[in-house]
Amino acid sequence: MPSIGIVTPQVFHFTEALLLQSGASIGDYQLMVETYGTLNTEKSNAVLVCHALNASHHVAGFYADQPNNLGWWDNMVGPGKPLDTNQFFVIGINNLGSCFGSTGPMHANPATGKPYGADFPVVTVEDWVHAQARVADRLGIQKFAAVMGGSLGGMQALAWSILFPERLAHCVVIASTPKLSTQNIAFNDVARQAILTDPEFHGGDFYAHDTVPKNGLKVARMVGHITYLSNDDMAEKFGRELKTGEYQFGYGVEFEIESYLRYQGDKFSNYFDANTYLLITKALDYFDPARAFAGDLSKALAHVKAKFLLVSFTTDWRFSPERSREIVKALVDNRSTVSYAEIDAPNGHDAFLQEDARYLNLVAAYYQAVNQELNHGVMRELA
Amino acid sequence: MPSIGIVTPQVFHFTEALLLQSGASIGDYQLMVETYGTLNTEKSNAVLVCHALNASHHVAGFYADQPNNLGWWDNMVGPGKPLDTNQFFVIGINNLGSCFGSTGPMHANPATGKPYGADFPVVTVEDWVHAQARVADRLGIQKFAAVMGGSLGGMQALAWSILFPERLAHCVVIASTPKLSTQNIAFNDVARQAILTDPEFHGGDFYAHDTVPKNGLKVARMVGHITYLSNDDMAEKFGRELKTGEYQFGYGVEFEIESYLRYQGDKFSNYFDANTYLLITKALDYFDPARAFAGDLSKALAHVKAKFLLVSFTTDWRFSPERSREIVKALVDNRSTVSYAEIDAPNGHDAFLQEDARYLNLVAAYYQAVNQELNHGVMRELA
Repeated sequence: MPSIGIVTPQVFHFTEALLLQSGASIGDYQLMVETYGTLNTEKSNAVLVCHALNASHHVAGFYADQPNNLGWWDNMVGPGKPLDTNQFFVIGINNLGSCFGSTGPMHANPATGKPYGADFPVVTVEDWVHAQARVADRLGIQKFAAVMGGSLGGMQALAWSILFPERLAHCVVIASTPKLSTQNIAFNDVARQAILTDPEFHGGDFYAHDTVPKNGLKVARMVGHITYLSNDDMAEKFGRELKTGEYQFGYGVEFEIESYLRYQGDKFSNYFDANTYLLITKALDYFDPARAFAGDLSKALAHVKAKFLLVSFTTDWRFSPERSREIVKALVDNRSTVSYAEIDAPNGHDAFLQEDARYLNLVAAYYQAVNQELNHGVMRELA
Repeated sequence: MPSIGIVTPQVFHFTEALLLQSGASIGDYQLMVETYGTLNTEKSNAVLVCHALNASHHVAGFYADQPNNLGWWDNMVGPGKPLDTNQFFVIGINNLGSCFGSTGPMHANPATGKPYGADFPVVTVEDWVHAQARVADRLGIQKFAAVMGGSLGGMQALAWSILFPERLAHCVVIASTPKLSTQNIAFNDVARQAILTDPEFHGGDFYAHDTVPKNGLKVARMVGHITYLSNDDMAEKFGRELKTGEYQFGYGVEFEIESYLRYQGDKFSNYFDANTYLLITKALDYFDPARAFAGDLSKALAHVKAKFLLVSFTTDWRFSPERSREIVKALVDNRSTVSYAEIDAPNGHDAFLQEDARYLNLVAAYYQAVNQELNHGVMRELA
């Protein structure tokens, strides 16, 4: 199915300071935004797509000068795709603190004139949601047809349903979790330690030293990447295959999996910002809406009004189906409307970004129902 | 139950070069050895205990000047313990290339007079077994009552049964695997990359620079440690507990699990040698006795003569029960005698070192049978 084609990012500039959960605030910031499709007159067909760790506002399509730079969820969003841009007005926003054009650690701190570096305030999932709400305000969108995301993006969708229960009709949470497990936090901290202890990190001020903590970022990405893939899928794709067919008895690349992971790590360290990586892993660690309710997720979700679709993947060991079922249970406890699908997919956590007919058809069917509900609502008003 | 008490390591010096699987050889090396109990006149009651990644010849007891330095398997080996030193003569050997006194990367290369560093030849599980066999020769032990090990130690026991089928009556393989999975190799490579890219590694010659790649070793140990623990056990012990009870919105220690892992990583980087870490992860990666038989483990084990005890632990996701069952299946294919127990333990891979009555009683019962078999054999010869 064809992509939506050429898209153009926009810069949304905000001058009113945003108060953050940490107590810090950030003033005069910008967010990168892309939109696809057409906002209807009632402004009722908008869908916000929230991104995960290393993605951005560039959800679908490509840029005129970068025909190969396809949006990260191009198989999900576009004309005739599950989230159909012929029906919906879809919005992607690069989160505050990320490194794809929105204000982040590499930008100048107005207080010092130098890049924020590690001084960029730690932001939370809830902070991102508040920043996204300002974008919605500016676009005149009072209520989203849906807020949607996978992984960390799913956490944002869930936070939307709690923070702004009136502002979304549907909440689509894919391959996500109500909070990180101890093991999830542990892997994040390994990644952070790899970055923080890289001498090229310079306490976060590596920009001034004209260097990048590439080794730390590479190791961070490698360990992260392992948690995105399933054990079986890795075995299937790489097994114990050797680059040369023979043991080399040295420390160069030997197994194909080493080659793959090191390559992915190197690639990542060439484009991703180390301070952003730190920042986003902390946002992941902190997310825990039940925390204010003594761990009771049902209480945390007591006032949501959205209808929910949750999707998990059987081989996802990062955010396993069990974690999605915790959300489902809490919603059911509150008699919320919730659909839940557990997809038998081989690709682990990464499955949420992959081609999988059962998964994509399921999301497509859900959005068809959302669209019918929208049109039905509109028709009733006309009648 | 009391420990065996004060023990004393011995140095075994070898002048005949040992040809290694890589084609390299190592001459004039020493191995650290400890023995517990008494070798009987027939020299038939010896049990070799093989160690895993970060352990050594110091299996049980303590040193006169280090009363708190208990052997790593003191709960398994000693008078009245599962491997009862009142009945068996138990031997621990620090493997070649390790860093507890046996010849390794920090020792002088006779060819250069300088520490081997990263030039220390890569050794394999099979190389270790050959080196251990020389120790047995020197002690006059023709046939072990058992060769035993957990994790990487279990690989050595398995290799013994293949390389020297006549030299062991029993093979005890605990929490082990016939080969690393792709994911196992991937985690090892993350650890290696953390060490290799630490600027203090100096290509393995950090001894000459009077430094240690502590940061790399720390990250390596942290990622390893996560794979030794079960998800549930981590959650049970650390959960999402915070050091101070509140989010700090910074990059210091925040969650208890971070505190624990960083502490363990620091401690490890203070005593373990980085080159040894590299070396041993490669030995793990390479172990794959079925490789010479086109992946057919049954063929690889076709000529073993030992009787087997295999033990796995339900929550071990590093070397899961499934991996032990692969060995069991291959042995059954060959009509070998094999006992297999899957222990429902919460502690993940580390369970093989923990107190667990069902596990320890099982091993105790097995060794009682081995002992009876020994005495019965002796009695038959006397009759």
